[in-house]
Amino acid sequence: MKKLFAEFFGTYWLVFGGCGSALFAAGFPTLGIGFAGVALAFGLTVLTMAYAVGHISGGHFNPAVSFGLWAGGRFPAKDLLPYIISQCIGALAAAGTLFIIWSGKAGNVIDNTKAGAFASNGFGAFSPDGYSLQSAFIAEFVLTLFFLLVILGATDKFANGRFAGIAIGLALTLIHLISIPITNTSVNPARSLSQAIFAGGEPLSQVWLFWLAPILGAIVAGFIYKTLLQNHAEA
Amino acid sequence: MKKLFAEFFGTYWLVFGGCGSALFAAGFPTLGIGFAGVALAFGLTVLTMAYAVGHISGGHFNPAVSFGLWAGGRFPAKDLLPYIISQCIGALAAAGTLFIIWSGKAGNVIDNTKAGAFASNGFGAFSPDGYSLQSAFIAEFVLTLFFLLVILGATDKFANGRFAGIAIGLALTLIHLISIPITNTSVNPARSLSQAIFAGGEPLSQVWLFWLAPILGAIVAGFIYKTLLQNHAEA
Amino acid sequence: MKKLFAEFFGTYWLVFGGCGSALFAAGFPTLGIGFAGVALAFGLTVLTMAYAVGHISGGHFNPAVSFGLWAGGRFPAKDLLPYIISQCIGALAAAGTLFIIWSGKAGNVIDNTKAGAFASNGFGAFSPDGYSLQSAFIAEFVLTLFFLLVILGATDKFANGRFAGIAIGLALTLIHLISIPITNTSVNPARSLSQAIFAGGEPLSQVWLFWLAPILGAIVAGFIYKTLLQNHAEA
Amino acid sequence: MKKLFAEFFGTYWLVFGGCGSALFAAGFPTLGIGFAGVALAFGLTVLTMAYAVGHISGGHFNPAVSFGLWAGGRFPAKDLLPYIISQCIGALAAAGTLFIIWSGKAGNVIDNTKAGAFASNGFGAFSPDGYSLQSAFIAEFVLTLFFLLVILGATDKFANGRFAGIAIGLALTLIHLISIPITNTSVNPARSLSQAIFAGGEPLSQVWLFWLAPILGAIVAGFIYKTLLQNHAEA
Repeated sequence: MKKLFAEFFGTYWLVFGGCGSALFAAGFPTLGIGFAGVALAFGLTVLTMAYAVGHISGGHFNPAVSFGLWAGGRFPAKDLLPYIISQCIGALAAAGTLFIIWSGKAGNVIDNTKAGAFASNGFGAFSPDGYSLQSAFIAEFVLTLFFLLVILGATDKFANGRFAGIAIGLALTLIHLISIPITNTSVNPARSLSQAIFAGGEPLSQVWLFWLAPILGAIVAGFIYKTLLQNHAEA
Repeated sequence: MKKLFAEFFGTYWLVFGGCGSALFAAGFPTLGIGFAGVALAFGLTVLTMAYAVGHISGGHFNPAVSFGLWAGGRFPAKDLLPYIISQCIGALAAAGTLFIIWSGKAGNVIDNTKAGAFASNGFGAFSPDGYSLQSAFIAEFVLTLFFLLVILGATDKFANGRFAGIAIGLALTLIHLISIPITNTSVNPARSLSQAIFAGGEPLSQVWLFWLAPILGAIVAGFIYKTLLQNHAEA
Repeated sequence: MKKLFAEFFGTYWLVFGGCGSALFAAGFPTLGIGFAGVALAFGLTVLTMAYAVGHISGGHFNPAVSFGLWAGGRFPAKDLLPYIISQCIGALAAAGTLFIIWSGKAGNVIDNTKAGAFASNGFGAFSPDGYSLQSAFIAEFVLTLFFLLVILGATDKFANGRFAGIAIGLALTLIHLISIPITNTSVNPARSLSQAIFAGGEPLSQVWLFWLAPILGAIVAGFIYKTLLQNHAEA
Repeated sequence: MKKLFAEFFGTYWLVFGGCGSALFAAGFPTLGIGFAGVALAFGLTVLTMAYAVGHISGGHFNPAVSFGLWAGGRFPAKDLLPYIISQCIGALAAAGTLFIIWSGKAGNVIDNTKAGAFASNGFGAFSPDGYSLQSAFIAEFVLTLFFLLVILGATDKFANGRFAGIAIGLALTLIHLISIPITNTSVNPARSLSQAIFAGGEPLSQVWLFWLAPILGAIVAGFIYKTLLQNHAEA
């Protein structure tokens, strides 16, 4: 049960910090943090929570990560559903808090006819820079695949594991540095779901891609790591 | 006594570095560091001092942190008052030094009719982006709550404690990436007090929120950590 | 064989992340990540993969690094060719993936009459800021020389080796912070080759400099480290 | 002798990377790295070299650091002069290399009637934002004092010493985030000397302040640390 609370708080923090920095601070005139600041914020949510509650739950905060660790033989199938439910509830609670705070400024209403509404993900007309469905799918697939390679590698029993929180958090920063213009960056179905539910409309109807591509990428990463990279000797 | 000196120097550095970067460098034409640079500066004050004097005093540098550690059962009640006094004296000394340096440029005078005067915190008309009192309160409460969850988790006896300085410092960076537009970011009553005293006027009359919300958030975090997340087994 | 897969995936990630951030996100209007974001992205590709697969292959991801480690007496000559081939294949595969994703936005076609086309390296008229061949050569030589000094020093048996991934990754960030305007920054022949092949034209005909200067710099670093800095006592 | 080579290469890297990023990349149109990028570059020169050659020479790269460690009882007086000479030679060699590369772009000539010419330090009319001599002196004194407190604390035998390279490097980043607009940031007499010699004119005649204030601040830090903070018990 402590594990599920840890996943709840960790995913809450990921959405509150990552999507919150996008909503409140990215586009502030002249002094705003831009995409680089949002990328740093997403990564730091994971870095900070990995050191805070990683020792409790493993620190997934992302359904694709749970699937990828399962595919890599590091996470039991029976825990997949409870973890994913905790992650989604945490993400939704964070999105709700963001909505309340954000609504406290005159003029802030969600316009779901625009790309990135309420920090939602999208492709085609809902990609921040107009990338197609195919580009979005490949980008989310490849980025989540490598995210999981970093996670599986950095937490390998032969690796320098105490640094995994730094490597994994900064991998998420890197992923956002590359791909915010393509899809507003998901690689995390829970983060996509929570923002899409609040945005509604087209962002919500596109949310399937941000479940399918990241989870597929993560599962493929699990098999690649086991087959091509892992040393199966005893530690 | 060494502990109180450590808290004095650490809080001095937090205010000098964080508020100093905001005053001197954030809005420099074209090349200025913006909110992202200020966010990094605040976090690095804590990261650097955590490794420098954390072994002496624990490295709080913030009355809300002292309250949160007390609520989490990690800090004795009798040390609360001396720590908080040292922190506030350090913050005031730093604000005074900043004022002297800052006044050495022609035209630099504090205009306390504007949001963020002398790097002060505020809400409503004194929020950098016009967020309401309610939004400001929720943001400061939630952000300090999670700041303390990171601190309590990263310094837990079951955690990877040597990295706590990195996780805690970068958590403060993350918090600023999210919320400078909302309240100019406090989560630290000593930092708010020192700037409000120099600013005076409305910023000073709003300083109550930046004591109340962070300390409440920190105390709630202490109880959440003890109740829902902490492993009470022996290490 | 696992080593060659590790070098393949690591170099793929270096090119996908570093050149990808440049292609997709650097110049996005107002919110783009700029050269500083690209510098961070390049460094984080190495930092993340160093902790992920460094325990498998040593984590070179760069022919110049392999040459420099050989010159420093840390890498066998017989492994040079297979490593470099794996690195080049990884870089090319990443460039191909980038091309497919990038082409999914209307209007994106490579214009190889301009500096930095498809994130390629160049000098003279193909230097982003118009630096001469001589400047480009010296910059690539010196930067790769110091990159290898950091690598050889940080992985020395007398050094604090667990932090090498952080030091080496952030050294690559630093190198990009200095030199993107000079050559678009190579210090890595595989990264230069893959982008030049896709760009064609003048960028391709300039690629020789980005093999020659980095490899020379790396080899000189190997001899400097062995001769002037290394402690030859037993650990 | 290895120690003096280590100080030579380390200080070369500090000046080449820090001042180089300022010269080449800070003001590039639209995509330039700005003061925040330069701040990061300076810090990363120290972080990377601390892990690379810190085990050889202690990793000072700065006459003020050598003085401060001497005042703190951690560095023998007889090594002060050779260390400082090595540092100054390294800084000058780097400035010379920068000058050669920088001159390879049409139109690049040093204009020493302007603040920050060739990345030099200054006050009054030569402060980037017009701060007075008094402000400049106090800023350099306070910043170097705290830089040395971080160094002395993070390398204390009771501290978490393996992280010292991160804390010290990022302290230099923080210092630059605060003070580039005030003095173009020195806290390092060798870095100031090398740029002032190439700039000549008024920047050279102001260089005394950037020896006096940092060295005084460093010495005061040594006494403060010994007297108020250090635990004199055996480890």
